[in-house]
Amino acid sequence: MIQPATIDVLGVGNAIVDVLAETDDAFLTAEGIAKGGMTLIDTLRATALYSRMPAGIEMSGGSAANTMAGIASLGGSCAYIGKVANDQLGEVFAHDIRAIGVGFATKPLTDGEPTARCLILITPDAQRSMNTFLGASSFLGEGDLDADLIRSASVTYLEGYLFDRDEAKAAFFAAAKIAHAAGRKVALTLSDTFCVARHHAEFTQLVSHVDILFANEGEAAALTGEAEFTAAVKALSAKCPTVCVTHGAEGSVIVSGGQTHKIAAAPVAQLVDTTGAGDLYAAGVLYGITAGLDIPAAGRIGSTAAAEAISHVGPRPQQSLKALIG
Amino acid sequence: MIQPATIDVLGVGNAIVDVLAETDDAFLTAEGIAKGGMTLIDTLRATALYSRMPAGIEMSGGSAANTMAGIASLGGSCAYIGKVANDQLGEVFAHDIRAIGVGFATKPLTDGEPTARCLILITPDAQRSMNTFLGASSFLGEGDLDADLIRSASVTYLEGYLFDRDEAKAAFFAAAKIAHAAGRKVALTLSDTFCVARHHAEFTQLVSHVDILFANEGEAAALTGEAEFTAAVKALSAKCPTVCVTHGAEGSVIVSGGQTHKIAAAPVAQLVDTTGAGDLYAAGVLYGITAGLDIPAAGRIGSTAAAEAISHVGPRPQQSLKALIG
Repeated sequence: MIQPATIDVLGVGNAIVDVLAETDDAFLTAEGIAKGGMTLIDTLRATALYSRMPAGIEMSGGSAANTMAGIASLGGSCAYIGKVANDQLGEVFAHDIRAIGVGFATKPLTDGEPTARCLILITPDAQRSMNTFLGASSFLGEGDLDADLIRSASVTYLEGYLFDRDEAKAAFFAAAKIAHAAGRKVALTLSDTFCVARHHAEFTQLVSHVDILFANEGEAAALTGEAEFTAAVKALSAKCPTVCVTHGAEGSVIVSGGQTHKIAAAPVAQLVDTTGAGDLYAAGVLYGITAGLDIPAAGRIGSTAAAEAISHVGPRPQQSLKALIG
Repeated sequence: MIQPATIDVLGVGNAIVDVLAETDDAFLTAEGIAKGGMTLIDTLRATALYSRMPAGIEMSGGSAANTMAGIASLGGSCAYIGKVANDQLGEVFAHDIRAIGVGFATKPLTDGEPTARCLILITPDAQRSMNTFLGASSFLGEGDLDADLIRSASVTYLEGYLFDRDEAKAAFFAAAKIAHAAGRKVALTLSDTFCVARHHAEFTQLVSHVDILFANEGEAAALTGEAEFTAAVKALSAKCPTVCVTHGAEGSVIVSGGQTHKIAAAPVAQLVDTTGAGDLYAAGVLYGITAGLDIPAAGRIGSTAAAEAISHVGPRPQQSLKALIG
């Protein structure tokens, strides 16, 4: 017999503190940074880039963690599994996620790498270019999974960024198995075209265990090999019961149960910083689905949440999304 | 023979990273926090308050450091002396102040207290209530003074908040002596009524070594014993060649060389967070004086810089003050 779920969504991802700074295109060029993307950097590069970038502000980030922040802001219940170190930035991450009502109890890494940082450079066109030092976050493994927590969640949401080290890959497959055995759903975001390209065969295998898949147009193309948007969405929807593919300013397409829904983007008064747009879109859709709404309604909440995220600096909501959706 | 100064202002103060969070009046009441003030807190209280306050954002702060950030943004040259620890928040502080072009070379504290943090709670009325854990910052002593740096600055600006431990008090008197021996000026901000009340006799003694004094109405009253604003300004101006006293929304009064100048506040489109208002007022006035402007012009730059600071969350300028003053 399947017990009723006690929380809506459990997120599993890289626990990261963001360092956000405004800069210009010339700085990106001088540093050889591709605009709009995510680049993994090591300690040396992190130190060098940080020493040259402008003064910044620090705030908790991490893709799946941002999504949990969005769901909590919408009124959903959630928890998070991710690895920080026992250092000051780890304390900041843990404080912030707990303060917004998201359960977080993963044991911090001790005597190892420091807490992950993402150096985010925001250009005047509101694009964010991310340079991620993974540190402690990538050391998440199967031992960090709380099986009871997974069984208690309607949806376990996995962040593709984390799907890199063998331990994390094993943890993802294990989490999906525990969730399905308890009659729960598994969601995945592909996160990044580079991640998908780097682990293509294993991502394809993982997607076959996924109920709700999130991707942007580039990631959909990378996984399916279909460069054209509609063809990529179609190919993706053959692999997974529900696929949600974002398409920048055009909004998104959700294919679920054989039906295709076009979801319009929500209007934005002033585009400031695209950091967190995809994370908050996923928050809205997952909130809507777990609240029992139909797909178009869930998609609209995703658009609203994404619009809030890009109207200010930083990835997490700065006003109550629950109030925003009325 | 007096050598020309090579930098405009050297700031000496508590090196602090701010943790800013929006909250409501009920939270302040529940925590017993007096709105608008600064309270020193110990490790236990810092941990307890942090565990209960909302998710925040971290950014470099510290009163005199914010003032140096303002002068740099206006186009002035400056340096800073303050004590961080060799930890992650210390790295953040050092990076941010250097990134805005302020010289900073004070040796970090090792194997002692962590870098100072100020838990700042912003209420819907834009007031900030500060809870400061001084940590490493209060361990600044005479040994941290760079005498050549002091001699190279037109003005050495001392932050009253730091005037607490005997080592810091000795450092202030020593810095004033070095500056005057080199034909330079000494400025001081009284920082806080509580600081003034706690060390009244020594503050009075220190003021007799000061050329440019900054205070708000409460601090002026605390030092002079005159509760009425005009009387307090008059009493203060008898102690010091130039006194600048802020008066909230009414602007400020500067008495210099026997002349009294009323300085209007600059208009603010939207009052968001008063953190840094006094620090940035001092930045504008010190920039103006070291640039050779007359007192009313310097005061107007102070008003403009303060208005920028209170129009956003956080104490340091978020747009070029140089561009703002044209």
